[in-house]
Amino acid sequence: MSRVYLDHNATTPLRAEARQAMMGAMDVVGNPSSVHAEGRAAKGVVEKARAQVAELVGCKVQQVIFTSSATEAAALAVAQKARHGGVFAALPTEHDCLRVWSDHEMGSLYDRMGLPLSQGVAALRNFVLERAADTARAGRGPAALLALSAANSETGILAQDGLVVGSGQMNATADSSVPYSVVCDITQLAGKMSVHYGSETPSYAILSAHKIGGPKGVGALINFTADDPEPVLRGGGQEMNRRSGTENVVGIAGFGAAAQAAHRDVVAGRWDDVAQLRNILENAIAAASNKTIFVGKDVARLPNTSCMLTPGWKGETQVMQMDLAGFAISAGSACSSGKVKASTVLTAMGFDAVDAASAVRVSLGLETTEEDVLRFADAWAAKWTKHHARAA
Amino acid sequence: MSRVYLDHNATTPLRAEARQAMMGAMDVVGNPSSVHAEGRAAKGVVEKARAQVAELVGCKVQQVIFTSSATEAAALAVAQKARHGGVFAALPTEHDCLRVWSDHEMGSLYDRMGLPLSQGVAALRNFVLERAADTARAGRGPAALLALSAANSETGILAQDGLVVGSGQMNATADSSVPYSVVCDITQLAGKMSVHYGSETPSYAILSAHKIGGPKGVGALINFTADDPEPVLRGGGQEMNRRSGTENVVGIAGFGAAAQAAHRDVVAGRWDDVAQLRNILENAIAAASNKTIFVGKDVARLPNTSCMLTPGWKGETQVMQMDLAGFAISAGSACSSGKVKASTVLTAMGFDAVDAASAVRVSLGLETTEEDVLRFADAWAAKWTKHHARAA
Repeated sequence: MSRVYLDHNATTPLRAEARQAMMGAMDVVGNPSSVHAEGRAAKGVVEKARAQVAELVGCKVQQVIFTSSATEAAALAVAQKARHGGVFAALPTEHDCLRVWSDHEMGSLYDRMGLPLSQGVAALRNFVLERAADTARAGRGPAALLALSAANSETGILAQDGLVVGSGQMNATADSSVPYSVVCDITQLAGKMSVHYGSETPSYAILSAHKIGGPKGVGALINFTADDPEPVLRGGGQEMNRRSGTENVVGIAGFGAAAQAAHRDVVAGRWDDVAQLRNILENAIAAASNKTIFVGKDVARLPNTSCMLTPGWKGETQVMQMDLAGFAISAGSACSSGKVKASTVLTAMGFDAVDAASAVRVSLGLETTEEDVLRFADAWAAKWTKHHARAA
Repeated sequence: MSRVYLDHNATTPLRAEARQAMMGAMDVVGNPSSVHAEGRAAKGVVEKARAQVAELVGCKVQQVIFTSSATEAAALAVAQKARHGGVFAALPTEHDCLRVWSDHEMGSLYDRMGLPLSQGVAALRNFVLERAADTARAGRGPAALLALSAANSETGILAQDGLVVGSGQMNATADSSVPYSVVCDITQLAGKMSVHYGSETPSYAILSAHKIGGPKGVGALINFTADDPEPVLRGGGQEMNRRSGTENVVGIAGFGAAAQAAHRDVVAGRWDDVAQLRNILENAIAAASNKTIFVGKDVARLPNTSCMLTPGWKGETQVMQMDLAGFAISAGSACSSGKVKASTVLTAMGFDAVDAASAVRVSLGLETTEEDVLRFADAWAAKWTKHHARAA
């Protein structure tokens, strides 16, 4: 029987449109920086894709800066922190590519928190804004650049119910407020839901091609500010001097085509069907195990993601057992899933380390079928019954 | 009549082997960081390519760190400068991706130099080493990390006649010598000549897939030191914590396959035939114009590169006229060819700015034919005759 891939938040298969565009771009010989006909043709491939990505994320074409990954886009955004007050803060629920740059005090203040689970990521965001205000009051300057993801990669929980988090003001003292800027991680939201901005747009957004059906190794920083970012990669002056290095023409072509197809599918409401399958899956799992918690089930979340926490059964073990049974799922986010440790996201949400280590993420794609999720639920239930009997 | 592409140093067409490997990798669904079967398959693609690149450049497999470009590899190497004494110096003949990071005083010292052309890049290297010693004597610390390219991209001139430049000692005072480390740019050498190291290997080497028949947007840092480099891109901990960001699996597969094919072709001596075509080209041009200087003709250089300087005829104009006539060549390196300015490389070699702006680079590939170069020489000669008549 063929394998069932249910790890679409880690990476999702290449869309046919992306493959087609990539194969076309393979025949484009030139370097986009060359002025001759071959160079101009390569430049045309890159610029077509830039417009396609801009359409998906709702920005101006020239605001799209192609990078090699959302990770590189994050580093480029964070490198601008001096312009936004010199402090950068990221929630423990953010992806490692943002969290790794966070100024230490935000993390340690956060550790002392303990919010009830039900409040989800939106509450965490508010907490960090308050801590940033504390920082400002203590004379250490405002936490001027904040990382706030639009949708969490492990739980699918949305920061603001379909809105991409923007910039704003926070109360620093009774008399004054401190402006803050936001780098919004839309890697998981883009291509699964419409990208809407609230009354304020963020300063920066980051996203990745391979989460929307494009190839791995391509991403973008969306720069909503009026200033060109200080480059992190320097040299030939590509991307209008914002990011040097010969462009990944084949990959960028795939990113653009995937963005266009993803946008079309979001508009067509295809993810509503995926949400129904996700609910069918969760109901089937719940019927088999009354111990399993579906993290974020009661708050707004992505249509395709189920974070299933089954106390007493290690997530890593579940992943391995399901892999042997023919199903690909994950424990934690893919980048760090090689490490056997509790999810930082879940411990940050108030779960203790042992329970947090009992979670798996099942993430569906547009091609996932009802048969897929029911086969998974059956196989999972069989393993769970065995594990439960052994443990009892 | 079909166009003739003679700008292979800017970028060279995708090899059939690379295309094949990339199409195969498009079917590999997983994220290389995922532990399930799909993830392991993707990891396998990356690791196969790593071994192929290691074979080409003559290093251990784990010394290969995949990046998005030679430019990113340069930034990663330069980020290690603190370990090598805290000063980084690059010749004005280096590629912009290295030169941009150079400590200012090296450049301005260099400006006062004025070496005879015939001494080429090897002499420039010695000059910089002497200036680095001056820097050390002046108490500003040794120029501990130097960028020294194995082959110049614009002229093809080799730093050390087929040897990749290694680390060593330089005289700082009469009594003491200062150790220096080298980041060697092998972007143009690799895949055209065997990569040999002298008695000392460099600390780092950088290279790019798209110069050897792989795709644009993939490169590597080769780390010959015993220490893991401090990462520039941080997050998920890919590339053994040396470079985060989901791997460009399709692009890396193409890089590996191109490296293997390029290595095979170097060993088979196929570039000797290219050198003969380059000489046929230069003889034909010389027959048409006794004013044209072939830069580096008398020193060791790459087999495929001709830097032709024709005083009184702007390189940019030549590029445009030849483009209209169906030939792709370049003035300066591709990255900076959008800017109309004299080649830094040539002015550094002692040409005045007006003469330096009269140079074009014609760079051949393995598929270039004798008919191609003769058609080019005829077309160029016709334009030159017209231009010369107008100017006279």
